[in-house]
Amino acid sequence: RINGERLWASLMELAKIGATPKGGVKRLALTDLDKQGRDLVVGWAKEAGMSITIDQIGNVFMRREGRNPSLPPIMTGSHIDTQPTGGKFDGNYGVLAGLEVVRTLNDQGIATEAPVEVAFWTNEEGSRFVPVMMGSGVFCGAFSLETAYAAKDTEGKSVKDELARIGYMGEQVPGQHPIGAYFETHIEQGPVLEDADKVIGVVPAVMGLSWYDCVVTGMEAHAGPTPMGLRKDAMQVSTYIMQEVVKIANRYPPYGRGTVGMVQVFPNSRNVIPGEVKFSIDLRNVNDELLNTMHEEMLAFIDKTRSDSGLAISIERVSYYPPCPFHPDCVGAVREATAKLGYSTMDVVSGAGHDAIYAARLAPAGMIFVPCKDGISHNEIEDAKSDHLEAGCNVLLHAMLERAKI
Amino acid sequence: RINGERLWASLMELAKIGATPKGGVKRLALTDLDKQGRDLVVGWAKEAGMSITIDQIGNVFMRREGRNPSLPPIMTGSHIDTQPTGGKFDGNYGVLAGLEVVRTLNDQGIATEAPVEVAFWTNEEGSRFVPVMMGSGVFCGAFSLETAYAAKDTEGKSVKDELARIGYMGEQVPGQHPIGAYFETHIEQGPVLEDADKVIGVVPAVMGLSWYDCVVTGMEAHAGPTPMGLRKDAMQVSTYIMQEVVKIANRYPPYGRGTVGMVQVFPNSRNVIPGEVKFSIDLRNVNDELLNTMHEEMLAFIDKTRSDSGLAISIERVSYYPPCPFHPDCVGAVREATAKLGYSTMDVVSGAGHDAIYAARLAPAGMIFVPCKDGISHNEIEDAKSDHLEAGCNVLLHAMLERAKI
Ligand SMILES: NC(=O)NCCC(=O)O
Ligand SMILES: NC(=O)NCCC(=O)O
Repeated sequence: RINGERLWASLMELAKIGATPKGGVKRLALTDLDKQGRDLVVGWAKEAGMSITIDQIGNVFMRREGRNPSLPPIMTGSHIDTQPTGGKFDGNYGVLAGLEVVRTLNDQGIATEAPVEVAFWTNEEGSRFVPVMMGSGVFCGAFSLETAYAAKDTEGKSVKDELARIGYMGEQVPGQHPIGAYFETHIEQGPVLEDADKVIGVVPAVMGLSWYDCVVTGMEAHAGPTPMGLRKDAMQVSTYIMQEVVKIANRYPPYGRGTVGMVQVFPNSRNVIPGEVKFSIDLRNVNDELLNTMHEEMLAFIDKTRSDSGLAISIERVSYYPPCPFHPDCVGAVREATAKLGYSTMDVVSGAGHDAIYAARLAPAGMIFVPCKDGISHNEIEDAKSDHLEAGCNVLLHAMLERAKI
Repeated sequence: RINGERLWASLMELAKIGATPKGGVKRLALTDLDKQGRDLVVGWAKEAGMSITIDQIGNVFMRREGRNPSLPPIMTGSHIDTQPTGGKFDGNYGVLAGLEVVRTLNDQGIATEAPVEVAFWTNEEGSRFVPVMMGSGVFCGAFSLETAYAAKDTEGKSVKDELARIGYMGEQVPGQHPIGAYFETHIEQGPVLEDADKVIGVVPAVMGLSWYDCVVTGMEAHAGPTPMGLRKDAMQVSTYIMQEVVKIANRYPPYGRGTVGMVQVFPNSRNVIPGEVKFSIDLRNVNDELLNTMHEEMLAFIDKTRSDSGLAISIERVSYYPPCPFHPDCVGAVREATAKLGYSTMDVVSGAGHDAIYAARLAPAGMIFVPCKDGISHNEIEDAKSDHLEAGCNVLLHAMLERAKI
């Protein structure tokens, strides 16, 4: 069994770096604060006797040697960058749970056949730089190192320059690092476990995701003198598409998701009929065929709206990854560890993307969820219970040992 | 007859200050550019031999003395601030037409019994600071100087500080300036004159207006893991209210108007369900009873939406003025001048608010409209024909002379 207090203490220590007044954390990828966070975690790993490898996109692999160093390591990990209004647990928990597993093995003097590694991946959140899940994405070849290096933040600073600046541009070629199996513990970031009063979520799969930018172009005109019948109101036309996004998701329960999170209105003046509205669409489903059906229905609705309204409407897909079912061996290892430890449990499909889906392209992978308060994440009030974090870490320990062999 | 070329040249000269790449003007109230525009117009007035008075809200009165200085001045005016995507004519035409009247009187050596004044009023547009038509509103006592001074832009800068900063906080107490009669020339800002192929619009009345801020508060949560049924999506709930605004206006033709021009989404991130949406509502009608019915129907719909959705929804009225019928003497003077000059004409109800409706609370007032291209205003492509502007200015000259007495 791991040491829950030590895990909690490490989480709180790391959360001091970039702590916000409302109790959250703002530690954006590749900032000075990210460097401080990375240095702290790497320091802890070294204290635990681990060796460090850094790749060219700044992913960090912290290794506890096995009896058979030529075996591919059993890996766990996550990320330590946060949202601008992020919490203490998203990502950080997965990394520090891994470190706690190693500390426990050290305490108990347990040697493993295969090496054990803890990774943290660069820029998972995608807040400062897109694409999201950048480090693991480059690692598995979802997109190139050059694409990632060229990404710029809103101030025009590039990933390449910022990585070099904080001293985390390593030498290893991304993806040239072997993985025997990959596990990731994470807060659920949704309300399902808490609602069902379960401690451990076994994650059979992660939903696929499709992101779009939609732009509706009308004609801005004065809100007073322009008769209703002569208007080309981009906001009004947008509202019908926005409602359809939710209707489409509701047509494909229980895993259909549809969200309009970002809206920009031009010129955004109280007495001007909006001439242009740009908004994001986020569609998800755990079934790729259904996700594709949702995609098609949305395009069809946009075509219909275009011809009904006479307004110009453009739609562009800006991100996509398919649903990711996890490997039966890893899902099984999590399920068995949970049963052995006697925690209440249920299966929870992940609605959020995680580095595990990219690791899963190279090795068997699985995930362990624990509840978070009110299902809230990407919010400074994100919270989780120490017992639940401890339970998830115990499951991780046993699942990893099952694969690494004592 | 006035000099149409000189009027046009002055309009183009003033339009250089804050000129946008698309041919429009962005010269928001109380900015450095507004100061430059004010300085240019005041300089022209001084060249024309006029004296200048500035009041405490920054309204500027430029006076050509009459034979009888104790008579209240026959005044014309408008504003020179613009929308963020404004044109060259809205407001500016009314001010420079007044200046052209004075230049013409000077050229012809015509003396008037009553003084003639040209005013420009502070912050007519209401884009940077609410209330809209601020300068004329304070002048006629529609709201207090303190209310206006306290208004802040989105960066938190106040009217009082900005007015002092640009050097246009005068000493005269607003409203302590006498007016004998008030005329305002303006582009129609709607399509009616152009559609009917008429040159001069005689304006019998201005629609009443009611402005609101509506805030819908849900709960921000992650767009992936949060099931559709458990969401409190502030954007989705907002779309139903936004659609109702237009439906209400359509129930009261031909003068009902309903517009949502401004929308702000929080936190405005692609994978976060919006936790709060703030948007503006603009309702108008020329009949105050119908405007009130529209107001009541909107409040009822918001009550219904609040109980249907379970979300918190606040609605606050931020501006209101009733419909304003103009004075028969001034409307008559415009009608007669138009007939005498032989221009084609029709009556046009104004959908836009103008400083004239506040001047009308203190003195007989009337307005003169000229067509603008495609009825477009509050848009950088706003355009008007030199002949039409010249015609409107000739009507202004004759209407003012009729009242000021040669
Ligand atoms: N876990 C997480 O927040 N990932 C970001 C990508 C997503 O929106 O699912
Ligand atoms: N003329 C004009 O644009 N006035 C602003 C107030 C309104 O929206 O009617």
